[in-house]
Amino acid sequence: MTTQQIQEKYAELALRTGVNLQKGQALMINAPIDGVEFTRIVARKAYELGAKDVHINWVDDELTLLKYENAPDEVLANFPEWRVKLHDMYAEDGAAVLNIRSTNPDLLQNIDPKRVALANKASAEAMKNFRRYTMNDKIAWSIISIPSRDWAKKIFPDKSAEEAMASLWEAIVKIVRVDKEDPIAAWDEHNNALKVAREVLNEKNYKKLIFKSPGTDLELELPEGHIWKGGSAVTENGVTFNPNMPTEEVFSMPHKYGVNGTVASTKPLNYGGNVIDNFSLTFKDGKVVDFKAEQGEEVLRHLLDSDEGARRLGEIALVPHESPVSTSGLIFYNTLFDENASCHIALGKAYPTNIEGGSSMSDEELDKHGVNDSLVHVDFMIGSDKLDIDGVKADGTTEAVFRSGTWAW
Amino acid sequence: MTTQQIQEKYAELALRTGVNLQKGQALMINAPIDGVEFTRIVARKAYELGAKDVHINWVDDELTLLKYENAPDEVLANFPEWRVKLHDMYAEDGAAVLNIRSTNPDLLQNIDPKRVALANKASAEAMKNFRRYTMNDKIAWSIISIPSRDWAKKIFPDKSAEEAMASLWEAIVKIVRVDKEDPIAAWDEHNNALKVAREVLNEKNYKKLIFKSPGTDLELELPEGHIWKGGSAVTENGVTFNPNMPTEEVFSMPHKYGVNGTVASTKPLNYGGNVIDNFSLTFKDGKVVDFKAEQGEEVLRHLLDSDEGARRLGEIALVPHESPVSTSGLIFYNTLFDENASCHIALGKAYPTNIEGGSSMSDEELDKHGVNDSLVHVDFMIGSDKLDIDGVKADGTTEAVFRSGTWAW
Ligand SMILES: [Zn+2]
Ligand SMILES: [Zn+2]
Ligand SMILES: [Zn+2]
Ligand SMILES: [Zn+2]
Repeated sequence: MTTQQIQEKYAELALRTGVNLQKGQALMINAPIDGVEFTRIVARKAYELGAKDVHINWVDDELTLLKYENAPDEVLANFPEWRVKLHDMYAEDGAAVLNIRSTNPDLLQNIDPKRVALANKASAEAMKNFRRYTMNDKIAWSIISIPSRDWAKKIFPDKSAEEAMASLWEAIVKIVRVDKEDPIAAWDEHNNALKVAREVLNEKNYKKLIFKSPGTDLELELPEGHIWKGGSAVTENGVTFNPNMPTEEVFSMPHKYGVNGTVASTKPLNYGGNVIDNFSLTFKDGKVVDFKAEQGEEVLRHLLDSDEGARRLGEIALVPHESPVSTSGLIFYNTLFDENASCHIALGKAYPTNIEGGSSMSDEELDKHGVNDSLVHVDFMIGSDKLDIDGVKADGTTEAVFRSGTWAW
Repeated sequence: MTTQQIQEKYAELALRTGVNLQKGQALMINAPIDGVEFTRIVARKAYELGAKDVHINWVDDELTLLKYENAPDEVLANFPEWRVKLHDMYAEDGAAVLNIRSTNPDLLQNIDPKRVALANKASAEAMKNFRRYTMNDKIAWSIISIPSRDWAKKIFPDKSAEEAMASLWEAIVKIVRVDKEDPIAAWDEHNNALKVAREVLNEKNYKKLIFKSPGTDLELELPEGHIWKGGSAVTENGVTFNPNMPTEEVFSMPHKYGVNGTVASTKPLNYGGNVIDNFSLTFKDGKVVDFKAEQGEEVLRHLLDSDEGARRLGEIALVPHESPVSTSGLIFYNTLFDENASCHIALGKAYPTNIEGGSSMSDEELDKHGVNDSLVHVDFMIGSDKLDIDGVKADGTTEAVFRSGTWAW
């Protein structure tokens, strides 16, 4: 396949399997300016599929960096109202939202983490209403990734920029199944496999999961009525979509007051342009009471101090160690890939859809049911080929869920 | 000079002479996505000059075309509120506004002019408040141009795309005086010459101008209190800026009820992506009562039917035929260049700053003083080396203002 053909296939997969664009629907795209060629293909195909309006929010890493380097704190801390209005307008209109990502993991490495935290917090607060639409699956949304030069060079430091870009395209294409004859059919099959896994876990209805691996000994209570999800999701209007491409996880929520023990990270975490690596967290009754990091400890501290809920967990996700991302053997320095190579947990907000009736619960009810709330939701990797997980059932019996990093059954 | 050096000099000229960016001021840039390299240079220099915030509205011709080709009328007719809010926010904050243009004159040639008119009208109506800021010089604003492939190929059809781009860069650089050792000093000198011309005209205080050339015999009354402007402008806060680069004109307003006779265009007019060529307009008491065009007559009709004021004049501008744009010998199919090669008039809204006290007059007072109002302001060229202009003074005496396309004095 030529580059053009690959990108056409990828664009179509993103629109049909990703956001499942409907005739007459609007599409909002967030896209990197260096990915203009691919983004134009997506826009053209969206209109071909019957979109009534395609709006693109262009993101330029260079400009973002310039702003962090130069703008005063009060400008960084001011998330403008017009941008909130823009997002709310498309959400209220029932638009699909496609995020085309092209990260530079080291973009903000020389920026004071306090300034990054300031901007992230302002954005999270201002976008609360819009986030309700995506986190409750009120609208169809999807995140896909395309290579950037800096990202490719980070993963393949010994290759030329051009070779690195080509290698990263190749890796992504394989991981998102665009190399398959019929990627859309391949995703249907994959989603079915994830459906089987989540149905088994929902049937088992474990009260507790126990994680053991080098540096990790963690007990994680699952709240009553918790739901395992994974693969495609369904909007209120019955439209099936795929929030993440790739996605290899089945996930649910831990009880916000029911996490105890210590957990060690197994991959670097890229948080807002900064890398946190080789870190561990110790929990007592759901709250992080101790932490350390070999790299980025200061950034980790800011993350944990974002708000009350940032010290508690919002997600537990199970991913077999032999997933396509994992077998690629690459570290992507990008959560959207690395999380699909490995079991992970997330600090911060839980998805209300991971508990029965969660989407219509008040803030108080969510808390009573053990559903964590926060302005942040940050995944980090805890899986490896040495991870064992036990499940404790309602009657107290214990059984193997994971052994040596993969399903025990 | 290398391309990089030329672009650095141009960027600095745009920021210092164009919008005269102040320390601590915000800067809003409208820029073409294909001009990302140059735009990033401008953004970096803006922060170096002390900007507190640089916001860029990216414009993508390909996306604009896709939208016109595919979106239903109601989407085209809906200028979104968030975009109004964005502009108002920066205007209220006293931001400088830099427009980096890179036209494709034929972009919308296959689009139904009715659909273009629909979108233009919606935009003009929605942006009324913001336009008050720019047209009354409440904030500093400037329009500069950079080449695009399509534009360059239109001007240099026999050259390769790359050669055409290089030739257009070269032509622009000369016309905006960036080839000079010190472009900022060259602009100071140029602005002084324009100041002399406008002071002479203000002193003469003609009641009427009479235009004669092949196809043209037009009498144009100037309202009481009219003011000739040209070159740099000054904001309410006393900041000197240059709205247009290049600019070679001194301009004022005709009386909206005082234009009679016929005027013939001397260059093609590019209106919203469509070319109108070889056209003439006949006026009676200020209003167009007849018109014809060899090319684009339908587009011209839509323009004239935009609203009441679109059939009356809002500007008269005098440009000697030997201006740098004119001596380049090129037709740019772009009003911002072609208007500076030639005397021109504009259909539609007059600049309230072209009459004494105009900025604080009510709509009724403006009308009583002969100041035209409209949602459009469209310049077209009427100058040539055959144009003679006479000025009629208060005492009825007549004197030569232009002979054979240039100043008679
Ligand atoms: Zn996850
Ligand atoms: Zn997550
Ligand atoms: Zn003019
Ligand atoms: Zn004008």
